[in-house]
Amino acid sequence: MRKNVYLLLACFLLSAVSFAQTKPDYSKVTLVIHGGAGTITRQNMTPEKEKAYREKLNEALQVGYAVLKKGGTSLDAVEATVKVMEDSPLFNAGKGAVFTSEGKNEMDAAIMDGKTLKAGSIASVTTIKNPITAARAVMEKSEHVMMIGAGAEKFAQMQQIEIVDPSYFYTETRYQQLQKIKDKEKTQLDHDGGTGSNENIFTEGNKFGTVGAVALDAYGNLAAATTTGGMTNKRYGRVGDAPIIGAGTYADNASCAVSATGHGEYFIRAVVAHDIAALMKYKNYSVKKAAEEVVMKKLVEFGGEGGVIALDRNGNFSMPFNSAGMYRGAIKNGKAEVYIYKD
Amino acid sequence: MRKNVYLLLACFLLSAVSFAQTKPDYSKVTLVIHGGAGTITRQNMTPEKEKAYREKLNEALQVGYAVLKKGGTSLDAVEATVKVMEDSPLFNAGKGAVFTSEGKNEMDAAIMDGKTLKAGSIASVTTIKNPITAARAVMEKSEHVMMIGAGAEKFAQMQQIEIVDPSYFYTETRYQQLQKIKDKEKTQLDHDGGTGSNENIFTEGNKFGTVGAVALDAYGNLAAATTTGGMTNKRYGRVGDAPIIGAGTYADNASCAVSATGHGEYFIRAVVAHDIAALMKYKNYSVKKAAEEVVMKKLVEFGGEGGVIALDRNGNFSMPFNSAGMYRGAIKNGKAEVYIYKD
Repeated sequence: MRKNVYLLLACFLLSAVSFAQTKPDYSKVTLVIHGGAGTITRQNMTPEKEKAYREKLNEALQVGYAVLKKGGTSLDAVEATVKVMEDSPLFNAGKGAVFTSEGKNEMDAAIMDGKTLKAGSIASVTTIKNPITAARAVMEKSEHVMMIGAGAEKFAQMQQIEIVDPSYFYTETRYQQLQKIKDKEKTQLDHDGGTGSNENIFTEGNKFGTVGAVALDAYGNLAAATTTGGMTNKRYGRVGDAPIIGAGTYADNASCAVSATGHGEYFIRAVVAHDIAALMKYKNYSVKKAAEEVVMKKLVEFGGEGGVIALDRNGNFSMPFNSAGMYRGAIKNGKAEVYIYKD
Repeated sequence: MRKNVYLLLACFLLSAVSFAQTKPDYSKVTLVIHGGAGTITRQNMTPEKEKAYREKLNEALQVGYAVLKKGGTSLDAVEATVKVMEDSPLFNAGKGAVFTSEGKNEMDAAIMDGKTLKAGSIASVTTIKNPITAARAVMEKSEHVMMIGAGAEKFAQMQQIEIVDPSYFYTETRYQQLQKIKDKEKTQLDHDGGTGSNENIFTEGNKFGTVGAVALDAYGNLAAATTTGGMTNKRYGRVGDAPIIGAGTYADNASCAVSATGHGEYFIRAVVAHDIAALMKYKNYSVKKAAEEVVMKKLVEFGGEGGVIALDRNGNFSMPFNSAGMYRGAIKNGKAEVYIYKD
């Protein structure tokens, strides 16, 4: 008899533990996004343009947050969120991707799961409507982490991922940016508002237009996603930091999820995303202290312009950038906030 | 008069300081190499094969060490060293690169300068005789860090880097490895001696045949280089850890230089090379403790087979691997040592 009571008690305890582990905790659910950093100042902005960016950033936040509130995973949320930005011509990713020197749109993307440290990445693809979805397929449906070029496109096609004609990525404004810079014969990153021209919602070249999202779901799991069209007038199959795990994209439940936007070459050399995670893991820095150390000190000394979004497992997040502005936002407890400038 | 004496004294002191800074210190000059890790056991080895590997590893060490002793930089040394291995059919890099699923040889390489944190990387190139030389050109002659595919080849050609017909990379043994594994319809990494066949010096497929070098020069500067043909039967433009800065290749005078060889997907996800550097920088681990922590603990728990070579600024180095064997060697104070097995 006493044996049975013990058995019952053991069963009850096991169930309780198991329930506690799997019980979703919606209180910490958080989603943070960026839509690129650079010379984004009030002087270079029109009210119409600002409104368009604010609305699209808010839409991206609401779409991803809805996923999280319905019990979706952080992976589902970051994918859904950046797809909204990929489908918008406002950002240098997907539909709004900038042009290479040869007049093509070559895109890169990466996604990482903080729970399993699984990751997927694609680079130099020209026909995949949503590069982030292809990156996720690489992570979940292949034994590889990174696929590039025609091979990556073949794989995406086999996974029934939407393929479009390269002309889908043609936008007049991005094409004009290429023509302008070709005269100068140098590469340029997205979001360079330095010209001060604001005759059109898109006319100024903008620097570092990469977009990204990091999320914490109700199960306590982190994820990160980044997607980009790279640099206007890029050549020689240049790849930036976005698809490089540890540089532009990283997620680990033991530290944080990071997505970066900036001068990719510097971000690769500084292994930015993993460095933030390492400072948290090995020096017990908070996510804010770690992200600021890397973006506001190390990258500044190094000459690397840009910013990151970083999120820890308790829903604490940081959005530091050392450029004039960064399209960014966060949503937590149902409250969305969207920012563009420094102040 | 007294003013002049002070001036003279100041000049003398400045010269002395400047001399002390630039005076080469040959006592710590060190070069460490690997030629791939995997199921390399005495049972799978013939005396002829072992001799061939030992001789080529020793040659690679001597070539790079001669560069260092003549006052060459660590960058010069690692490039010269891995070129010896790229030019040999023994290793899965350059001439001995394995075949992709489509019967091509697609190579990746990266190099990093520990003094400046500058880096260069190429992926999926099929016509560059020495991929490591192209990676160095990306670092030194472009504003980019990573170039891939046809674009990278175009850049290499412009830099007068030797271009060869893809047939140069054809070796009968590697082609037979592809045919064997195609029957099994799965990818396989180089150096898989599991079959136990040893009828020919190259007949067993071998796992993880990536080659690499790390060096410390007389000026106290570190450098790392890695070059590979990737996985036999790889497809979809798969890229491994070798060309990923922070994963397969990393160098920072403030911590260490690392080159990795192993199951690339795990090495990317674990950001292996930068993690070793971070443990040294943030937890004050020795290079030995840091490299062993990552390779013998983290990667083992994670399921990632392979090894690394790691070298610090004092000439301390470590060559841990969690596979059966790893072709490896080091040279210091004129004394070269070459190893293959665990014992």
